[in-house]
This record gives sequence, C-alpha cells and structure tokens, in this order.
Amino acid sequence: MTTRGRFISLEGAEGAGKTTGLEYIRRVLVARGLPVVTTREPGGTPLAEEIRELLLRRHGEAMQPLAETLLVFAARAQHVAAVIEPALRRGEWVLCDRFTDSTFAYQAAGRGVDSAAVDWLAEHTHGHCWPDLTLYLDVPVHQGLERARTRPGGQPDRFECEETSFFERVRVAYQRRAAQHSRIVTIDASRDAAAVRRALEAAVERLIA
Amino acid sequence: MTTRGRFISLEGAEGAGKTTGLEYIRRVLVARGLPVVTTREPGGTPLAEEIRELLLRRHGEAMQPLAETLLVFAARAQHVAAVIEPALRRGEWVLCDRFTDSTFAYQAAGRGVDSAAVDWLAEHTHGHCWPDLTLYLDVPVHQGLERARTRPGGQPDRFECEETSFFERVRVAYQRRAAQHSRIVTIDASRDAAAVRRALEAAVERLIA
Repeated sequence: MTTRGRFISLEGAEGAGKTTGLEYIRRVLVARGLPVVTTREPGGTPLAEEIRELLLRRHGEAMQPLAETLLVFAARAQHVAAVIEPALRRGEWVLCDRFTDSTFAYQAAGRGVDSAAVDWLAEHTHGHCWPDLTLYLDVPVHQGLERARTRPGGQPDRFECEETSFFERVRVAYQRRAAQHSRIVTIDASRDAAAVRRALEAAVERLIA
Repeated sequence: MTTRGRFISLEGAEGAGKTTGLEYIRRVLVARGLPVVTTREPGGTPLAEEIRELLLRRHGEAMQPLAETLLVFAARAQHVAAVIEPALRRGEWVLCDRFTDSTFAYQAAGRGVDSAAVDWLAEHTHGHCWPDLTLYLDVPVHQGLERARTRPGGQPDRFECEETSFFERVRVAYQRRAAQHSRIVTIDASRDAAAVRRALEAAVERLIA
C-alpha cells in the first residue's frame, strides 16, 4: 500500500505572495525528494479552468453570489475527483493555490453567502479531503492591493475590481478561520521575502517531520 | 400592486416535443392578451447560456455528476434572480423550457446524484419559486430518441449521447414526480400533434381560470 500523500494549500488575498510562496515550497519539497503536484483553484482541470475563466471575467450582468459559489464548487468537484484525490492516493504531495478556505473568505464573508451553505457544499463536494496544512499569507489590505495593482500585465479581474471593504471582510474571515483551525498557519507576509520564506519552510518542515 | 404572474414549465425527454409545445402555449396565452416571457434552462441569461454551453459540450474529461448538478444550479440561480422572478413580479407569465424537475430526472435519477442534495440546492437556489403548472410531455424512450435523432442539424450533445437505460431512468423519475406533485400534468406525447395541443391547451385553460 502506498502511503497517502499530503495536501498543502496556500491562502491569502491578492498581492499576498501566494505564487512566489507556492514555488518556494515546491522547491523545498522537491529538494527532499518528495513527489509534488502543483495546482490551483478555481481550476486545475481543463473544464475547471473554463469555469475559472467564467468566474474571473467581468460580465454584462451582475453575478449572483450563490451562482458564483456554485461555480466555485462545480470546479472544485471536478478538481478534487480528477486531480487532488488521485495524486494523494498515488502518495504525491499536492500543493494548491487556494482551496475551500477561499470560499469562506470571498463568497461567504466577501459576498454575504450563508457560511452554513458553504459548509454543506464543502461536505458534499470533498467530504474529508481537507488540506493537512494551510499556509495563510496575511498582509494588510492596502499593502496587498498595492502589490497586486503594480503587477505587470493584464486588466484587473472581477475580484480585483472590488472595493477595499470587500477585502477587509475577506481578511477578517481568513484570520477568524486561522484562529479556529489548527491546520491553518498564519504567515506574516508583510515582512521581507527572506523572512516569509523562512516561516513557510519552518511550517512545511513541521509537516514533513 | 401588480398581480404576480404565473410560472409554467415544460418537461420531458429529448424528442418529446417541448419546443413545439412551448410555442403553442405561448400563442394560446398571447391570444388571451396575457404578457408572456419565454425562456429556457439551463440558460436564459448570457452567463447562464455560457454555463449551458459547458454542460452540453463534450469534454476531454468525464464531468463529475455533482459538478454537472452544481453548474445547473449556478445557471438557475442566475436565471431565477435576473429573469424569472423579475418577470413574475411585473405580472408576466413565464414559460420555461425545463426547470428543477429536469435536475431530479437527469442528475438525480440519470446520473445518481443524491436527490436530497438536489432538494437542498433547489431550496437554496429558488426557495418557493416553483412553477404553478408543469406540463410533462411523456413519450416512450425509443420514440423520443428516434424523433430527436432524425431532427435536422447538429451533432448530438453530451446528454443525447447517453444510453437508453439513462433515458429510461429519466422517464421513470418524471413519472414518479408527476404522481407526487399535483402541479405536474402528464401529457401523453406519443399521440398525434393535434391531440397533444388539445391536452396542453386544456391544462393551461384550467390555470387561467
């Protein structure tokens, strides 16, 4: 029997440094000789990436918060069944940019969808398949937005166009979930890159051990 | 205060004659001077039509039954909020090709999704907004498939490629729901067009009265 792999998610608002952090952790795991799959949400399969495109693009009509939430979970159902679960069963480490904590932060706290509904959808979509470790990159809203907006290339997506108050609600929700779930480790991402890397590595080392 | 409009849905398998039936009912209502909105599911708004396209197109990966169900309800959340509810509040009659009964037939009975999950999603997506009258066009599976397959134009979509046993489960589910819900009127659609039209008209006349 292959030992089941481990599942690590990265969470945080725009400009928190998830992409850089994910690549750094990937290198840490690969250096240890561990098999790693990197993926992202919403997305991770061709169909789920098409749903991601619907979620991020701006439309001529207002997207209903519940419709947004159901699209997120449709992509997730596809991603968990086709990518995450098979990789974990093969003994691989799955490194995922965002998972269900994002839905509690963005759709529940940000958009006002009932968090009991998000709980129900999570239970029905992925059951016990939760990350073993979630690295939450915490950064003050103005600092994250400044980083995100000065990034090269591209128009802001449908989420990046939200008001500061939306991102304040997202941040409070992340902090609250981090306080409630021991799998979530908060990383102060307002510090310099080297300090953030050390904190990420320490958390991952604890999981490996 | 405007009197709330009435909501009529048409249900049935491929080749049952929903399109023809819907157009006939529309003419009956218009002849009575009633304001009518015709629409369809999945779809009915530009975003919901994009979700429809994802649902009907064949993909390089197997679509998870739950992902399919969540996509259907994402489109429905958008459609109910942006089209159906506003029209009913304006006092218009909404004539819709398919609604949640299709989800019980295709995703629950056809694909094996737990019907309690479909119940939960229906309750959270449209609450009490159920059709006042549902016309279920019942036709033997082989007869419906023959009609659908000899229709001009186009490749069969992702549903039309299913096996006969899938459509048998869909039909049994429709018949069972019709037996349980008095709003659902079963129309024997294996008869000639004139007989079907008379039955549709009689059911609609009862709702008008």
